[in-house]
Amino acid sequence: MQELQVLEQGTVTTPRGFTAGAVHVGVRSDWEKLDVGILASDVPCAAAAASTRNRVPGASLVISRKHLASGRAQAVVANAGCANAATGKRGLDDAVRLAQLAGQKLGIDAHLVVVASTGVIGTYLPMDRMAPGIGKISLSSDGGLDFAKAIMTTDTRPKHVAVRSRDWSIGGVVKGVGMIHPNMATMLCFMTTDAAVSQPFLQSALAAAVEDSFNMIDVDSDTSPDDIAVVMANGLAQGDEIDSSDPQARLFSAALAQVCVHLAKAMVADAEGATKVIEARVEGAASREDARSAARAVISSLGVKTAVYGRDPNWGRILSAIGNSGARVEEELVKLFVATPDGGELQLFDGVPVEVDPALAKSCLVPADIRFRAHLGLGAGAATAWGSDLTENYVRLNSEYTT
Amino acid sequence: MQELQVLEQGTVTTPRGFTAGAVHVGVRSDWEKLDVGILASDVPCAAAAASTRNRVPGASLVISRKHLASGRAQAVVANAGCANAATGKRGLDDAVRLAQLAGQKLGIDAHLVVVASTGVIGTYLPMDRMAPGIGKISLSSDGGLDFAKAIMTTDTRPKHVAVRSRDWSIGGVVKGVGMIHPNMATMLCFMTTDAAVSQPFLQSALAAAVEDSFNMIDVDSDTSPDDIAVVMANGLAQGDEIDSSDPQARLFSAALAQVCVHLAKAMVADAEGATKVIEARVEGAASREDARSAARAVISSLGVKTAVYGRDPNWGRILSAIGNSGARVEEELVKLFVATPDGGELQLFDGVPVEVDPALAKSCLVPADIRFRAHLGLGAGAATAWGSDLTENYVRLNSEYTT
Repeated sequence: MQELQVLEQGTVTTPRGFTAGAVHVGVRSDWEKLDVGILASDVPCAAAAASTRNRVPGASLVISRKHLASGRAQAVVANAGCANAATGKRGLDDAVRLAQLAGQKLGIDAHLVVVASTGVIGTYLPMDRMAPGIGKISLSSDGGLDFAKAIMTTDTRPKHVAVRSRDWSIGGVVKGVGMIHPNMATMLCFMTTDAAVSQPFLQSALAAAVEDSFNMIDVDSDTSPDDIAVVMANGLAQGDEIDSSDPQARLFSAALAQVCVHLAKAMVADAEGATKVIEARVEGAASREDARSAARAVISSLGVKTAVYGRDPNWGRILSAIGNSGARVEEELVKLFVATPDGGELQLFDGVPVEVDPALAKSCLVPADIRFRAHLGLGAGAATAWGSDLTENYVRLNSEYTT
Repeated sequence: MQELQVLEQGTVTTPRGFTAGAVHVGVRSDWEKLDVGILASDVPCAAAAASTRNRVPGASLVISRKHLASGRAQAVVANAGCANAATGKRGLDDAVRLAQLAGQKLGIDAHLVVVASTGVIGTYLPMDRMAPGIGKISLSSDGGLDFAKAIMTTDTRPKHVAVRSRDWSIGGVVKGVGMIHPNMATMLCFMTTDAAVSQPFLQSALAAAVEDSFNMIDVDSDTSPDDIAVVMANGLAQGDEIDSSDPQARLFSAALAQVCVHLAKAMVADAEGATKVIEARVEGAASREDARSAARAVISSLGVKTAVYGRDPNWGRILSAIGNSGARVEEELVKLFVATPDGGELQLFDGVPVEVDPALAKSCLVPADIRFRAHLGLGAGAATAWGSDLTENYVRLNSEYTT
């Protein structure tokens, strides 16, 4: 397979024919930051999306799902500070109006505009400030960073990446960083590519990529009503259209998955109050679904999250989390390992406790990236999940501020 | 139905013919507290139990399940400080030996002894200290409080209650208070009664009581490998045996449920680091199962837990939690309320946000008991769940100490 190049500074405006920009309109009166952004393609795109399974989806998401039903989109208008969720008919009207305002500005049909809102649930969008704000947004081919900043809420930094093949590139931005759980993390994610991609293949590639990235991370077991990941393919790289039978299909899927995993891990690393990224790799499970469940249970467990934060090699909590996951487990076959700072592995459990040097075990929990590996000894199922640790600062952020 | 009297100071030795006692043996070398206890009946009992669904059950629980399969028991030997979980064959041998030691001391068959261990996972029981310790336990009819103390781990206080009818009483003790989740909370619960109860009816009454109490609380979404709730009925009150067709069946079930709910709420109130008990009542759900899921989702949500801790009336997180629960929800039909300090209710959501005085809303989150009520407007399903808030102290307790 062709080599893929990761551009750490890449973003949604890295692929050809995409522009973006953002302004500060004061969606929240106490915020100074950029809070409304537009991302646009020069030409209509094939578009695919994955969104929250929350039964009370936000109004902006409801409208975006309608617009995306055509499999086509050309722009995104997004805001932070207000989720436009639990807002009833007025919220739906506001979302339609946002699409119209962005469409008018760009000279495109409002149905080609995706609307995304993130922030406090149960407040209305300040349309009187947003309408003139949208008019002032200046779009450019280096506006991706501003767009990434405009969707941030409790994020401490913009999160973006691009992956490039010989012929095309895929860029992405994402925001977190609370209410993050495997059933679509609480997030907005926008991805762009100049590859020509058939819409059905784009949708299936996105679904597969999301399954192994955004659906394998956890901050706090919550899922918001606004989560959406969208990818738009404008075809300006001029190659043949990629579909599932195309020789480039595998490469494109791999690139899209790489972007999603990068952004998923970036969200976990910037999770509210977090100091560490915990990776849980489960191998030898009876099935792939069992491996996924077990890996997610480990990184979702508050017992594991707090022990890692406290650098306490309390591996019993990992075993217990696997036992709770619903996956088939036979205790006497389970092996548990933690990565050592020198790149090796320390075995903690081998059907029975392994005697280890407590100081060595503790040293494995000092780095910012902690890796656990479990082998269940039952089959060939494997999966990896990523979670943050849980700290006093998470509690402070979520109790002292309305987010 | 006959009146039931709640005895706040009642415990497992309140019903006739039960004795208990405890000693300090130093299961954990850093603990000074009582840590091994015995609870015994003068005569063999009908016994029923509910236990964890964790796939890696602790060794003590494995042995207890075997012993309880007969539907009969006469005593419990329990320890805190070591879960005897993830301990393989040695752990099983230790649990069998504990039952033998207690049986020898009491002059009863070891198969009539329930063994329960709670504490750190992945360490072995210090049998060299436990064996002589068990010999020194002095049992008496006022030993219930010491027994309740002996099973405490991070609990800050013993938790016990009894409920009395004209003819018999039911007493119970419980320990928490971390790794508490609806799928059998992390807990040991022992209940006794001097009523004569048929074993099949005792089992079904217990299952029903656990479903509405221990399976409706949450501290931190975790479930331990050792959870068990046991009830032993010795019949010394001399009445007719209560079975499902007996006129007293409803009264006994109600009393058992009352003991379980009392102990469940006591666990939540003493949850690690907690400052508040959050009650979520869901009504008008499409089914009882939907109501249960929705109520549990609310009290399990970290967003809700931290907002309540911070006295932030951020009801959008409650609506979102209900939306995540899997229950059928139609946003425009949902009504949300919070109990006011004067005993009334404040409506927060009525299909759309209700304008409320922020100071009044905040005042509802000041008391130690916070009550939310949601009406889904879809059917007759109703359920109540209880959870703790999430505080910096929870994080500290779980990161700075190995528990």
